[in-house]
Amino acid sequence: MVDSKDKPLFTPGPLTTSSTVKAAMSRDLGSRDTEFISVIRDLRSKLLQLASVSQTDGWEAVLMQGSGTFAIESVLSSITPPDGKWLVIINGAYGERILKILERHSIAAEVIRCPENVLPNLDAVSAALEGDGFTHVALVHCETTSGIMNPIAEIGALAKSHGCVHFVDSMSAFGGVEFDFAGSQLDCLVSSANKCVQGVPGFGFALCKRELLEATEGMARTISLDLTAQWRGLEGNGQFRFTPPTHTLLAFAQALRELSDEGGIPARAARYRANHDACVAGMRAMGFTEYVPEDLQGHIITSFLYPTDDFDFDDFYNRLNDKGYVIYPGKVTQANCFRIGHIGHLFPEDTRLLMVAIGEAVKEMKLAIPRR
Amino acid sequence: MVDSKDKPLFTPGPLTTSSTVKAAMSRDLGSRDTEFISVIRDLRSKLLQLASVSQTDGWEAVLMQGSGTFAIESVLSSITPPDGKWLVIINGAYGERILKILERHSIAAEVIRCPENVLPNLDAVSAALEGDGFTHVALVHCETTSGIMNPIAEIGALAKSHGCVHFVDSMSAFGGVEFDFAGSQLDCLVSSANKCVQGVPGFGFALCKRELLEATEGMARTISLDLTAQWRGLEGNGQFRFTPPTHTLLAFAQALRELSDEGGIPARAARYRANHDACVAGMRAMGFTEYVPEDLQGHIITSFLYPTDDFDFDDFYNRLNDKGYVIYPGKVTQANCFRIGHIGHLFPEDTRLLMVAIGEAVKEMKLAIPRR
Repeated sequence: MVDSKDKPLFTPGPLTTSSTVKAAMSRDLGSRDTEFISVIRDLRSKLLQLASVSQTDGWEAVLMQGSGTFAIESVLSSITPPDGKWLVIINGAYGERILKILERHSIAAEVIRCPENVLPNLDAVSAALEGDGFTHVALVHCETTSGIMNPIAEIGALAKSHGCVHFVDSMSAFGGVEFDFAGSQLDCLVSSANKCVQGVPGFGFALCKRELLEATEGMARTISLDLTAQWRGLEGNGQFRFTPPTHTLLAFAQALRELSDEGGIPARAARYRANHDACVAGMRAMGFTEYVPEDLQGHIITSFLYPTDDFDFDDFYNRLNDKGYVIYPGKVTQANCFRIGHIGHLFPEDTRLLMVAIGEAVKEMKLAIPRR
Repeated sequence: MVDSKDKPLFTPGPLTTSSTVKAAMSRDLGSRDTEFISVIRDLRSKLLQLASVSQTDGWEAVLMQGSGTFAIESVLSSITPPDGKWLVIINGAYGERILKILERHSIAAEVIRCPENVLPNLDAVSAALEGDGFTHVALVHCETTSGIMNPIAEIGALAKSHGCVHFVDSMSAFGGVEFDFAGSQLDCLVSSANKCVQGVPGFGFALCKRELLEATEGMARTISLDLTAQWRGLEGNGQFRFTPPTHTLLAFAQALRELSDEGGIPARAARYRANHDACVAGMRAMGFTEYVPEDLQGHIITSFLYPTDDFDFDDFYNRLNDKGYVIYPGKVTQANCFRIGHIGHLFPEDTRLLMVAIGEAVKEMKLAIPRR
């Protein structure tokens, strides 16, 4: 069970972390000091190991300060040549955000949109790629908007067959979902410190083919978010170019140790899946319905439809908060939903206690949930 | 004295922080939860108070994830209209960095450079501003490169007399130096969490006139570093647009309480000045010489010239490190220097212990320092 005095966070992050991850932040290390430089080197190497790749295979792990979105913008605004053109496959807010970033940098992009609880149509993607000179394809792995898991391997195969760079936003999935990294034919993947590795927020990271970094050197549109310059710095003297979040990085080093101790990604994915299953079973028993069809759901976060037309989410949220549980509002645009997250230092028993609290809230609110 | 098990950091940051600041990070708060939103609101208000301004006066505090450089780039790339033109006054690496950021965004800029241990020539600045359509003036407050304190009030007066926006990078000075905020005629100032407020690294902040934010809305060149959008988010629902470094923000809230408990900026500036004075006295007694003339030195960080032509800084650094003290390499380009910082949770007694260690290193290295 959760070992914190704070309310457990059933959210997509910031997450509930272990007390030992938080305790790892109780040190002040100099960012240019030998001990800290070895922490960074070790982190980068372990991140590649998590993906079953290595520098020898031509892969690099680049850490970038800020939230996950900063890391996404770092990649998009650094690895796109002036004549690059993206195909962005969108079924949620994080796909839309990729598009928004490209547009802000005046980078050419077209989109394929589909409903938020539907997988992208592979024929449509294939047909689109036959068109006008696409060079890059972007897809969100687990669309945290809804919790749907997108088919990155299938999209990767299409991207590669058209000679495109394959970029995946795996923010909420990397480290907590088993998938075939090599088989997904990725060129670059982004995630962040405070998702499935269970660190605290403060930086993101890109796992990127070295040849991609080398080929786009000098093309970055910003200084702070210059991915290649950041990589050159980390490879050169082992340091961040600009002050790193030292405490957050120490927490992440501990989080990586704990991921390994738990049994790596398979064990963590199994725990998250157990959280998901306990949640969905409990919610269904009370009459709630998921927004995403069962066979498309990931085990990262689940969107539930408002149970009644006049459902007062704020009241529901506040009652749960008063009982000591934090859930998350919805983000899909095509239905009224709220979300319950399954990641972080949370266990099935925590989820079952949440179900008890939700049952109490349902009674207090006198919700008459129709059986569907 | 320092209360940490780690080596005291005589650096410009990351700094040695108090154990209570670090302990404040041992909580996981949801970034959209009421308690956390009130923490952010309180931080923003206290930052304005530190500058003796308020929202009522038309000022806004905007927090931005990343290092201080991210906050600088956020301001430069957000508040410059398409036809804006900057005059950048440079006497060190941080002035050069401002120029580099402007150039990366293809923003028009001209520079006035002077040697790194010399103040900018006000007549030259005035003459430059008579020229071609400048709209913005940028200056670094304490140039951390050398430790020199630049004349922000005098430059502010010139900027204003030419109708220019006055921007100051006060990264290493804000919170630890007494200065007349109103009298400096600032439009925008940037600093970061882990400088004189003594938080941990992870975000920066801009204190900015609201009219400047309003006038440049929609002009930001990036999504992540969009200052105005960040401000609108913080004012709208009280939240960051993208995941904030929650633990770092909790540490900063504690750091602000400790700054107030110490007696505010005057008391903190007095302590830093005492650290500086103990350092300079001790170093001079051993024959070391400062790079910046005494009357231009701040009390943030001091650059010392290499004491001999064949001085081996790495050996010196490593010996001090082995004795438990972390100092900092030089950054000026025009002389061989190293630096000793005076900020953070450090006290004159800590500085005196550093002087003892330096004395030992000098003996061990058999340095024959010529008296100048």
